Amino acid sequence: MEPRQIIESIKAERPEIRTLYFVGCGASSSELYPAEYFMNANAKVLRTGFYTANEFNYATPVACDESAIVIACSLGGNTPETVAAARLAREKGAKVIAITHNASSPLAANADYAIVHGFEKNYAAKLEKMNNVLMLAVEVLNQYEGYDHYEDMVAGYNNIYDAIENAVSFVTPSARAFADAYKDAPVIYVMSSGATAKVAYSFSICLLMEMQWINSGSFHDGEFFHGPFEIVDKDVPFLLFMNEGRTRAMDSRALDFLNRFDAKTTVVDAKDYGLSNYVPASVAEYFSPMLITGVVRVYAEQLAIVRNHPLSQRRYMWKLEY
Amino acid sequence: MEPRQIIESIKAERPEIRTLYFVGCGASSSELYPAEYFMNANAKVLRTGFYTANEFNYATPVACDESAIVIACSLGGNTPETVAAARLAREKGAKVIAITHNASSPLAANADYAIVHGFEKNYAAKLEKMNNVLMLAVEVLNQYEGYDHYEDMVAGYNNIYDAIENAVSFVTPSARAFADAYKDAPVIYVMSSGATAKVAYSFSICLLMEMQWINSGSFHDGEFFHGPFEIVDKDVPFLLFMNEGRTRAMDSRALDFLNRFDAKTTVVDAKDYGLSNYVPASVAEYFSPMLITGVVRVYAEQLAIVRNHPLSQRRYMWKLEY
Repeated sequence: MEPRQIIESIKAERPEIRTLYFVGCGASSSELYPAEYFMNANAKVLRTGFYTANEFNYATPVACDESAIVIACSLGGNTPETVAAARLAREKGAKVIAITHNASSPLAANADYAIVHGFEKNYAAKLEKMNNVLMLAVEVLNQYEGYDHYEDMVAGYNNIYDAIENAVSFVTPSARAFADAYKDAPVIYVMSSGATAKVAYSFSICLLMEMQWINSGSFHDGEFFHGPFEIVDKDVPFLLFMNEGRTRAMDSRALDFLNRFDAKTTVVDAKDYGLSNYVPASVAEYFSPMLITGVVRVYAEQLAIVRNHPLSQRRYMWKLEY
Repeated sequence: MEPRQIIESIKAERPEIRTLYFVGCGASSSELYPAEYFMNANAKVLRTGFYTANEFNYATPVACDESAIVIACSLGGNTPETVAAARLAREKGAKVIAITHNASSPLAANADYAIVHGFEKNYAAKLEKMNNVLMLAVEVLNQYEGYDHYEDMVAGYNNIYDAIENAVSFVTPSARAFADAYKDAPVIYVMSSGATAKVAYSFSICLLMEMQWINSGSFHDGEFFHGPFEIVDKDVPFLLFMNEGRTRAMDSRALDFLNRFDAKTTVVDAKDYGLSNYVPASVAEYFSPMLITGVVRVYAEQLAIVRNHPLSQRRYMWKLEY
C-alpha cells in the first residue's frame, strides 16, 4: 500500500491518533529521522517519539496505546529488537507500520501494514525507505491536522529519486579524492544539521566504524561551537553535510571555522547537486538528507576500494551470537 | 522560585499548555535531557521538543506559541544562541523559564521565570541544573495531567545531592586509575542508555574533546550492536555509564561484549554508589544521570591532572570571535 492509503485506512478506524512513534536501530533508526524532524517542525498537536528499539522495549512509553501509530524500520526485517518492538506495540493496541525490504520478514509479519521498498537497483532505491517514512509522516500530519505544503511534499516524494540519480552520476571523482585523502585518517568527524543530522550519525557509526573500522565521532553542527570545535587543528579530518534549507546557516558557520583553522575538510552540499531543481524550495530541507545519503554512499564505496576493505566485511556482525 | 511554584503560576494563567520545549547548547543541552526522557516515558498527552538552540532559532517549530513552555538552560546565561531562542520564544507567546547560574544574565532577563542554581560549592551543586530541569518537567506533568510517582520524584529531588556527595567521597582512586590508564588514548568512546544517554554525549564532546583535546565519539548503547561495536578490538578504550533502572539490561549487554573482546573498558555504575539508598527504586532511572555526572567530573579532573591540561584550557572558546 501507498503511504496515503495506509494512513487513510488507519484514520477510518482510529480518528483520534495522538502519537507517532519511530522505532529502529542503527542505519534504520537514522532513516526515520527526517520524518521525526518534519513532525517536530510542523505538527501543532500530534506528538512523536523517536526510539532505538530496545529502549522502546525496556522503557516503553506510557502513551504507546490505541492512540499511537508506530513506524518500525529494518532493512532485512529481522532485527530482533525492532521485531520485538513491533510485537509489543501491537499488544498495547498501537497500529504498526513496518518499513522493510523483505515482505516475508518477521517485522512485516508483526505489523498491521507494511511498505516493502527497493534497495539493490540503484542509489535512488536505497532511499525508498527514508522517503516513504517521511511521506507517512506527511500523510499523518495532513490527514489528522492539515499541512499547508502537502502538494510540495508530494512533488518532492516523486522527484527525489531523479535528483539522487543525477547527483551520483557526477560524484565519483570527488568521492575518489575523498577516499585517497582520508584512507589513513586516524579518526574522521562527521556533522550536519536539520533533517540531515542523523545522516552524519549513520555515516559515522555505520559506514566508518562498522563497515571500515575507522574511528569516528559525530554531532549536530549547531553543537560544534559548544564543545567539539576545540578538537579542530590543522589536518584534523572532518566531513560536513550541508543542507538546502533553513538550517544551512549553521552548516556554513561550521565550514567557516574549519577553513579558518585548516582542518582537513570535505563538504557534501545538497545545493551543489541542484536539489531545488527537483524539489520545491519550501520543502527542500526535508529532502536534503536523501540526496546526501545517496552521494555519500559513493564516498563510502570509494573508501572501501582504496582501503581494500569491502563494505560488507565484519568482525562480529552476522558471525557471532551477542 | 521553586519548580512547583513556577508551574503553578503558569497554569493559573495558561490552563491549556500543550508542549514543553527544552533548548540549550552543549553541556547545557545534555543537562536538559533527563527531563526530556522523563516526559517521553510518562506523558500521555503533553508533547516535548528538544533543540540545540540555533536549530530552534533557524527552524522554529510551528507549535512554539501561547500553548508552549520553553525551558532554556545556560550556565553563565550568556550563550548567544540560547538567549536568542528565549527572546524568540517569548515573542511567539510561549512562557520561558531560564535555568542559569547568573541571575543578572541576558538569559534571565529574557525569561518569564528564572531558576538560579549553584555550581562552585561542591559536586552536588553542579547537578542543581539537571535536577531542577527534571523537577520542572515533573511539575508540568503532575499539574497538567497527573503523575503516579510524584512523591517519589520529590524524594529523589531532595535526596540526590547527598547521594552525589557520598559517591564522590569514594571515587578518587578509581578516577586516578582511569586517568593513568587512558591519558595517552588516541580515542575514547563513551556510551550509556536511558536518562543517562546524554551524559555519555557531554562527557565525549565537552570533557574529552573540548577540555582535554582527546578524540572521542559517543552513542546510545542500544545502538552499539547496530554499527559501533565493529570498532571493538583488544585495548580499544571505552567508558560505559550504567544506569539503575529499566534500561540497565542494554548497558549490561554492552559490557558483556566489551569484556568478551578485551576492550579497554571503564564502567561507572550508579548501582555501585548505592543510588537506591537515596532515591526510590520506582524513579531511580531518572536520577542515574545526576549521580554519574557527579562521579565522572572527578574522572575528568584526574585526567586533567595526569595530563597537565587544566579543564579550563581552550584554544578557541573565550579567545576568538566565531
